[in-house]
Amino acid sequence: MTIRRQLKLGAVLLGVGGPGQHHTWLDPEIPGDASVDIRWYIARAQEAEAAKFDHVFIVDSQFITPDSPHHYLNRLEPLTLLSALAVHTTHIGLVGTLTTSYNDPFNVARRLASLDVISGGRAGWNVVATGDGGTAGNYGRAEHYDYATRYGRALEHVRVVQGLWDSYEDDAFPRDKERGVFFDPTKQHPLNHIGEHFSVVGPLNIQRSPQGQPVIFQAGDSEEGRDLGATIAEAIFTHAQTVEQGRAFAQDIKARAAAKGRDPDHVLIVPGISPIIADTDEEARDKERAVRGGKDFHRALKELGRPFGWHDFSRYDLDAPFPELGDLGDRSFRTQAERIKKLARENGYTLREVVQHTLDSRRSPFVGSPRTVADEIQRWFEAGAFDGVNITVNAPSEFARFTGGVLPILRERGVVRDEYEATTLRGNLGLPIPRTSTRPRA
Amino acid sequence: MTIRRQLKLGAVLLGVGGPGQHHTWLDPEIPGDASVDIRWYIARAQEAEAAKFDHVFIVDSQFITPDSPHHYLNRLEPLTLLSALAVHTTHIGLVGTLTTSYNDPFNVARRLASLDVISGGRAGWNVVATGDGGTAGNYGRAEHYDYATRYGRALEHVRVVQGLWDSYEDDAFPRDKERGVFFDPTKQHPLNHIGEHFSVVGPLNIQRSPQGQPVIFQAGDSEEGRDLGATIAEAIFTHAQTVEQGRAFAQDIKARAAAKGRDPDHVLIVPGISPIIADTDEEARDKERAVRGGKDFHRALKELGRPFGWHDFSRYDLDAPFPELGDLGDRSFRTQAERIKKLARENGYTLREVVQHTLDSRRSPFVGSPRTVADEIQRWFEAGAFDGVNITVNAPSEFARFTGGVLPILRERGVVRDEYEATTLRGNLGLPIPRTSTRPRA
Repeated sequence: MTIRRQLKLGAVLLGVGGPGQHHTWLDPEIPGDASVDIRWYIARAQEAEAAKFDHVFIVDSQFITPDSPHHYLNRLEPLTLLSALAVHTTHIGLVGTLTTSYNDPFNVARRLASLDVISGGRAGWNVVATGDGGTAGNYGRAEHYDYATRYGRALEHVRVVQGLWDSYEDDAFPRDKERGVFFDPTKQHPLNHIGEHFSVVGPLNIQRSPQGQPVIFQAGDSEEGRDLGATIAEAIFTHAQTVEQGRAFAQDIKARAAAKGRDPDHVLIVPGISPIIADTDEEARDKERAVRGGKDFHRALKELGRPFGWHDFSRYDLDAPFPELGDLGDRSFRTQAERIKKLARENGYTLREVVQHTLDSRRSPFVGSPRTVADEIQRWFEAGAFDGVNITVNAPSEFARFTGGVLPILRERGVVRDEYEATTLRGNLGLPIPRTSTRPRA
Repeated sequence: MTIRRQLKLGAVLLGVGGPGQHHTWLDPEIPGDASVDIRWYIARAQEAEAAKFDHVFIVDSQFITPDSPHHYLNRLEPLTLLSALAVHTTHIGLVGTLTTSYNDPFNVARRLASLDVISGGRAGWNVVATGDGGTAGNYGRAEHYDYATRYGRALEHVRVVQGLWDSYEDDAFPRDKERGVFFDPTKQHPLNHIGEHFSVVGPLNIQRSPQGQPVIFQAGDSEEGRDLGATIAEAIFTHAQTVEQGRAFAQDIKARAAAKGRDPDHVLIVPGISPIIADTDEEARDKERAVRGGKDFHRALKELGRPFGWHDFSRYDLDAPFPELGDLGDRSFRTQAERIKKLARENGYTLREVVQHTLDSRRSPFVGSPRTVADEIQRWFEAGAFDGVNITVNAPSEFARFTGGVLPILRERGVVRDEYEATTLRGNLGLPIPRTSTRPRA
């Protein structure tokens, strides 16, 4: 029997806001305090679970100014949020963002292992190295780590966390009341890691979790980001603009993973998408025009500053050539910053034209009736442009158009599952449970 | 109308184990994996809530060896655990232990504020400075901070966290859909803290929580510990051996708090107690003898090492005079270590006698029929030896003897509440909501 490859499904739960979605909080369906309302998150997670989604996904940021987007200003800490969801769901995966730049590996390891134990094996870690340089000021540093240090720390951090997750063998706790044996100390292994960025003795203070190890998610499009993803990631959150770009990205990542001796099927490409769905294609295009018309040029001008460390672009003449920015952005979201500089340079764009381009480039490739959107998703999936998608969840009625309109079509075609295959995230994503490390122990 | 002072009630949920309770996991009522079983915690928290307890209390430790007590080896991270309890309870407070020695204040502030928001105002923070020196090795330090540094960090850490909790005024988020006003940036305040141990710019990325600030718990019996408690704590977890010692401790703490300009009624003394209850006093005394008989001398010998940095006492002759230990323990639980050294010196004890003494000194002062235990608790409470008690919860049937036997007697006498007064921990403990800080802001 051949197991048919099926599309993986993630739900990005934002509360209010999201990139270019400044006005979602005005939606009458969305409570203004959705970003901090645990009942809102529980309801959306349960809807996603009823639709057999693989996971919910919680993004994060930790640098705040008076101008920050709505969901930056006021949000729940990702793992605190996910632990509450864990006990109101039974099958859906719980993927949370934690930065390797401003967390200790011991804390990260035990918090994720605890979530994995509480949820019965549904935890995932979205590894980020933090792009917002201003975050440094909240953690006692005058300056953000430079790019190479951030990525060096990220790799070592993940390896330390994974080593701590191997502190106990699966059968280290017999808890045999008749024989009076709670624990087998020969199956506890300290880590004794001494590295460039971290020194951690271990062992961890929690048993090996149901998945063996929580699933590693990662994003990052730079050379360093792709290399890190190919090294550590089991699922990669990216962007999808065209099927050709998507396929090229997927092939590049999978080839890199294979070159590192990994099974490329165990690195899933799952871009974030925001489909726009209506009863007919025409209505969907009208809806898209309305959404785009509602986008705020001045908000986009502010958001343009983010990759450059929240640089203030309002100080420039909109109709003069795009300003010279030197190495601004090198310590923030460098790849995005470089792409914008290149765009302006190659096209001779003014600042206004660059902002307009960013507004246009946020157009969703998935616009139409449920059948059109289902067709397009299937086309990308079968072309190898992605292994799954992360759907941004805003208004519940819009999410229901996807779960109730698009998914039944894909389900009938066998593209998405009818029923969960497993109770763990790893099991549903088709990822193996890692063996405990066999390296020599101290 | 005078509001009668009532006894506060906390439930210490351990899973398995606890000081001197090595064998609890063998109890047929307690699952061997209770320490990592979220259903066990949810059930116990719901029982405590049904009995109108003020809070559940989660202890912690982060230094593990093959010899560590059972609940050290394998436990859920406290705040991950409490967030899951938050969404299966409605009134009970949720107090978790987080160390100021090995956490960044920004992470602590947002995790506790998130728990407070998720629970509707029921979060509490048990501030510890970490006694187990070996924890340092899990956080990249060759050596634990010295005693003065630990307490200096603790005070500054708490002040930074509290400052971050004041990042937003109560009405900073109008979320007025009609006027289109989500946020009032004039009501966001960065912290701009630059101190001896921490530098934190802020602001935090979550609104002011329902309690204004989560409740601060603290323990610590040394001069530095008492001073810190009198400065920052709103509830102090301590030990109770005699009513006179309890009253002296309470008076000392409250006098110190008053000298610092605080209202001494807003510093609650809540020792941990383990009552032994049976149908009659005689049966309770039999039960106590059985419990004490079951205590393991060799386990107690190991646990004696903890205040001295898990020093291995098995290397000494049990019947020789207590060994000379020099300054061992100065970087661990110094006050306990000094008390043991003094006890041995003043009584000329052998090592065996010291171990026997620690076993004897764990005798609970609360042993008897429900009426006897109720009488004794009331006597201590009315004598000012404590404002409340934290009950160690092991077997559910034993906890039920307290909630179903002792509490109804105290309730009839008006010593404990009939019904929750509030939905916040602060409201139930009779603690005011702190005003937002009025210090000049940057």
